[in-house]
Amino acid sequence: MARARLSIKRIGILTGGGDAPGLNAVIRAAVKVAVREYGLSVIGFEDGFAGLVENRSRRLTPKDVVGILPRGGTILGTTNRENPFHYPVRENGEIVYKDLSQQAINNLNSLGIQALIIIGGDGSLKIAKEIWERYGFPVIGVPKTIDNDIAATDQTFGFDTAVATATEAIDKLHTTAEAHHRVMVLEVMGRYAGWIALHAGVAGGADVILIPEIPFTIDKVCEKILERQREGKKFSIVVVAEGAKPVGGEVVVKKIVKESFESIRLGGIGNVVGEQIERITGIETRVTVLGHLQRGGSPTPFDRLLATRFGAAAVNFLMEGRFGEMVSLRTPDITSVPLAEAVGTMRRVPLGCDLIRAARQMGISFGD
Amino acid sequence: MARARLSIKRIGILTGGGDAPGLNAVIRAAVKVAVREYGLSVIGFEDGFAGLVENRSRRLTPKDVVGILPRGGTILGTTNRENPFHYPVRENGEIVYKDLSQQAINNLNSLGIQALIIIGGDGSLKIAKEIWERYGFPVIGVPKTIDNDIAATDQTFGFDTAVATATEAIDKLHTTAEAHHRVMVLEVMGRYAGWIALHAGVAGGADVILIPEIPFTIDKVCEKILERQREGKKFSIVVVAEGAKPVGGEVVVKKIVKESFESIRLGGIGNVVGEQIERITGIETRVTVLGHLQRGGSPTPFDRLLATRFGAAAVNFLMEGRFGEMVSLRTPDITSVPLAEAVGTMRRVPLGCDLIRAARQMGISFGD
Amino acid sequence: MARARLSIKRIGILTGGGDAPGLNAVIRAAVKVAVREYGLSVIGFEDGFAGLVENRSRRLTPKDVVGILPRGGTILGTTNRENPFHYPVRENGEIVYKDLSQQAINNLNSLGIQALIIIGGDGSLKIAKEIWERYGFPVIGVPKTIDNDIAATDQTFGFDTAVATATEAIDKLHTTAEAHHRVMVLEVMGRYAGWIALHAGVAGGADVILIPEIPFTIDKVCEKILERQREGKKFSIVVVAEGAKPVGGEVVVKKIVKESFESIRLGGIGNVVGEQIERITGIETRVTVLGHLQRGGSPTPFDRLLATRFGAAAVNFLMEGRFGEMVSLRTPDITSVPLAEAVGTMRRVPLGCDLIRAARQMGISFGD
Amino acid sequence: MARARLSIKRIGILTGGGDAPGLNAVIRAAVKVAVREYGLSVIGFEDGFAGLVENRSRRLTPKDVVGILPRGGTILGTTNRENPFHYPVRENGEIVYKDLSQQAINNLNSLGIQALIIIGGDGSLKIAKEIWERYGFPVIGVPKTIDNDIAATDQTFGFDTAVATATEAIDKLHTTAEAHHRVMVLEVMGRYAGWIALHAGVAGGADVILIPEIPFTIDKVCEKILERQREGKKFSIVVVAEGAKPVGGEVVVKKIVKESFESIRLGGIGNVVGEQIERITGIETRVTVLGHLQRGGSPTPFDRLLATRFGAAAVNFLMEGRFGEMVSLRTPDITSVPLAEAVGTMRRVPLGCDLIRAARQMGISFGD
Repeated sequence: MARARLSIKRIGILTGGGDAPGLNAVIRAAVKVAVREYGLSVIGFEDGFAGLVENRSRRLTPKDVVGILPRGGTILGTTNRENPFHYPVRENGEIVYKDLSQQAINNLNSLGIQALIIIGGDGSLKIAKEIWERYGFPVIGVPKTIDNDIAATDQTFGFDTAVATATEAIDKLHTTAEAHHRVMVLEVMGRYAGWIALHAGVAGGADVILIPEIPFTIDKVCEKILERQREGKKFSIVVVAEGAKPVGGEVVVKKIVKESFESIRLGGIGNVVGEQIERITGIETRVTVLGHLQRGGSPTPFDRLLATRFGAAAVNFLMEGRFGEMVSLRTPDITSVPLAEAVGTMRRVPLGCDLIRAARQMGISFGD
Repeated sequence: MARARLSIKRIGILTGGGDAPGLNAVIRAAVKVAVREYGLSVIGFEDGFAGLVENRSRRLTPKDVVGILPRGGTILGTTNRENPFHYPVRENGEIVYKDLSQQAINNLNSLGIQALIIIGGDGSLKIAKEIWERYGFPVIGVPKTIDNDIAATDQTFGFDTAVATATEAIDKLHTTAEAHHRVMVLEVMGRYAGWIALHAGVAGGADVILIPEIPFTIDKVCEKILERQREGKKFSIVVVAEGAKPVGGEVVVKKIVKESFESIRLGGIGNVVGEQIERITGIETRVTVLGHLQRGGSPTPFDRLLATRFGAAAVNFLMEGRFGEMVSLRTPDITSVPLAEAVGTMRRVPLGCDLIRAARQMGISFGD
Repeated sequence: MARARLSIKRIGILTGGGDAPGLNAVIRAAVKVAVREYGLSVIGFEDGFAGLVENRSRRLTPKDVVGILPRGGTILGTTNRENPFHYPVRENGEIVYKDLSQQAINNLNSLGIQALIIIGGDGSLKIAKEIWERYGFPVIGVPKTIDNDIAATDQTFGFDTAVATATEAIDKLHTTAEAHHRVMVLEVMGRYAGWIALHAGVAGGADVILIPEIPFTIDKVCEKILERQREGKKFSIVVVAEGAKPVGGEVVVKKIVKESFESIRLGGIGNVVGEQIERITGIETRVTVLGHLQRGGSPTPFDRLLATRFGAAAVNFLMEGRFGEMVSLRTPDITSVPLAEAVGTMRRVPLGCDLIRAARQMGISFGD
Repeated sequence: MARARLSIKRIGILTGGGDAPGLNAVIRAAVKVAVREYGLSVIGFEDGFAGLVENRSRRLTPKDVVGILPRGGTILGTTNRENPFHYPVRENGEIVYKDLSQQAINNLNSLGIQALIIIGGDGSLKIAKEIWERYGFPVIGVPKTIDNDIAATDQTFGFDTAVATATEAIDKLHTTAEAHHRVMVLEVMGRYAGWIALHAGVAGGADVILIPEIPFTIDKVCEKILERQREGKKFSIVVVAEGAKPVGGEVVVKKIVKESFESIRLGGIGNVVGEQIERITGIETRVTVLGHLQRGGSPTPFDRLLATRFGAAAVNFLMEGRFGEMVSLRTPDITSVPLAEAVGTMRRVPLGCDLIRAARQMGISFGD
């Protein structure tokens, strides 16, 4: 990795992948530090890599970022799918995929951009790595994921807000569960890692927590619920990560089968688990799928701070010539790690961590 | 309506139907006023009419209601289905329905209860009316409904909290919608009346609001969304009451068809509308079903106040001999109306109200 | 009051007095309805009447009001003191007051403005009335006050949000009071009317509520606290409106006496009451002055709705020629009343209202 | 430090010092783990060390801790001042201080308690250390401080919630500041360390942050405010830690000088700074002292989790014989450190940390 200091005068910035609370705080910090501290000009690309390939961008000044710190979403827009190395193009009415990465580099060059901040999840960071490795174009990554599953950083912004939203939901379901003697199932995000389910589940006082890292059997889940009933506790709270799966089972992926106007098929693990619990235990069960609410809203102070620190560090590290890296929280410091180390592996919940142990000791079941 | 003053020494209280934020505040106020002001004793029945029929009850003193004002749910428990006049009994492994109302009256008498406060929705209030009319047993109703569709009162507690929860959800979806240029559909409660959808929709700045009172056509909905797109507004927010229905269409009732472990069918109007919008407009659309979150959580100050006023008034009115009535908000006063006037009709959104007019003038579409 | 329909093409709008959550929602609704429904152009004056006199204004289009619905404050700015009829002008280094109302009218005329929406409290509405009466210039008032003390309307926007903030503060103080066996005193807004203290006090479960309408004696306050202690309740919550006053006492106005860098004198009724309670009862007492926090934050859904309805109605009423009036909530309708009826009198808490009665019955002391 | 495994059958627990959100979560986790995992019995002492000396205690079972996870305060009660080694005793109408530590040990022994969990701040942990060192009585400390200034742990519970409350306050003041073109000063907790001011200030987008670690001059503060004014930013937000002090100045300690009923003197640094700013800049300035609100409310998910992990670890470590230690967060692990290392030193904001640097780079002034 090169550490030679460039004479950088203009940088680009883009947000890729699903939105997360704190994206605007990163943008704001980066713009302010770039302009005030280093006298740079900043170009923001619209809608993630789509704007990079299609050359849609605009100048960002400190005035443009006033008031965005507490706001969710991203003022730059984002998309989930566009990848410059595998870009969807409509040809003869069909979508074909082409490598338009050279065009992206040309756009950067023609705009006079000498370095690029890419804020995104594993997918976006892989693209960042490839831009750096293939073209040597100076990039720095800023890790973003609601799910908190990016390796090589203690935490990503967005996660704390998602946990807050999920915990508040559990708090709300608690009173209804109690009043009606029901089982309430809450499905939260976490396709490959159960961080949100684990943190919100423990913080919300759940009785059962199902995460991708620990395959469950529905019988163990029901056993816990029935044990509670025998102890006179007439309700139970079950938190399920969307990627939780039964022992030996496949990951249940949500699918929407279009049928008539009157009905639609939607099968997520939350609904599956809820239906099984009601059938096996005979206790009335209700399912809530939290979905997109977890991505939205004003970021928590923690996420605003982490995002601000990441945004400032991204600019500082670029000016130090730390290219091809990703900013990273190594509590209590912000540092950087090579993108090559950060992408491709996933930070999953360690089964031996003290939180899992404490949860088990307090009687929370993981369905295993 | 009899207004003869009884020498009441002991009253009963129960909560029926779906839980709503504020139930505990009603119980607390009723107990405190009954004990402190009138020296009564108070018996709380557990799990609504089930406890009344099955004689499950407990004494409630001011000490028992300490700290419950800000809590959702109901400390007494509630059930949705049990009706003393049509009570589910298991006989030979099957459920048969019997009239056990005399047994309920016997229980009241044997406990020395001279008057009963029934807190519930339309169904519970109908039972209250029947107890009064058939047995002459002194009852007073306290109206409760998240949906705000009970006639003969300006508002019920629980509604303001549900609107707050729904509005917060819209606020959260807004940032994601904007960041991703998506249509976000939010399904909220309101089977027969669109109050929650209308209030939360306007308060949250929705673009389309679909309510049971105004049958919609999906084309008009899509027209609005596409019109926004042409104006450069790349996202739209659609709020749908669960009872919204297309012109000439049936109410789409949620049904869960049990299939394999891997899939489950769940069809609500929100999913139906979302699927149609994506198909017709070609714009990525996401659906969130708010569900039980609307029932939960700490009641808003408005709901705490209204519930407190209702609870206090219920006791005062009983002591004045206002039997067979329901407490009612007639802004700014609390009054009472005969139960016979209150039940059986539904308070729906008046199509000519100023809020509908204002919404239309600001460009909100109702899909008509 | 004239009801002749003018051919209005352009209207002005300004916000006067202290800011309140919902001001932006009024502006947004007025602009959208004016432009979309009537094809008007809208001019916003900056910083209330200061902008009107000094001719500082800008065009407001629907685009300018995007995203402001959930935001506190006012995008137009506001000031508390400037009155066109008694305007502060600096002459020879001193402030003298002049009647610059004709200059304000000239500004309106030269901008081609044919009618003016004035959003403000009693002071601003008096100015509105005078502009209408003296110059016959078409105005309509929109009532705004945190304190909810404007007559001739059931409620004003901003109040519900202030009550929510104050109630949340009481909720927070509760746990500390309980943990430490302390008396916690919370001073809230309400110089002439005790609405916030009463509503938040009851909603938060306060033990003592002191409001301007009911002069208190400190002995009665302490009696209540000691009575609670004897009952084993080791803490008490006292909510004090800033305008509460002891029997025979003067209104304690906050004054800041500038002294050395090291100390400053600040005497509000909350501190006075807290000091007295600690001295008389010997129980540790802490005082919190909520102050400006009550004006801030995102408006509650209720306030967003009421403000939206007011803003839309203001434009509709102007187009109907209802000049010299004020929009008003007469639950469930929005209507208008002559400004002459609305200003100069104050809506105070009626001592015989059911909420005061319920509060007393539950054991809350008003210190009388 | 002894690591010999005792045959522990019964443990005690107490909470000392000012209350903090999360205390109940610690108690809950400790009780659940002690009873479920190890079959211990748990005795809770009331009101901190007062209950230990005065032998006021009660048995705690899992049933006693149901529902307390999301609640602020402490179900055990706490006091700020009582120290067994220097205990206030009333003799002949005067308070004298005596060493009653042997009495505390006797109480522990007579109750059959073999180990004690002490949850508290620096003062309480010092007492814990002394109990261990002088009597060899097995203790373990759990660090608690709103201010986050305890050394030897990455973070304490309560801090995240306090930052959330302070940040929300800044968000609210922002809109008023903007609407009125004012300087808003917010005084937050932090007598010796500026963590809350720094975190909330950056998260809330403050313009000036004054902390104990960086002595300020009022001229630099005003310079920043006037610079903003020149740039057209008509308002400023100043966050002041209660322990902030001017260069060469003394810590301004709040004092209440009792005077007449009409006035009271109260001088905190917030008021001092606010008064100076208004005088020097001529810009209207308002001061809010957040005070006890920072201690209250439901703990954030982070604090619930950290407190839960601490509570579980305290019991686990006791059972491992780790006496005379304090549980500690060493991200991502929970470990323990000798109390001797943890007490007496203070974790202050490092002046060279990346957050201070980022804040400066973004233009935030620290008044130096």
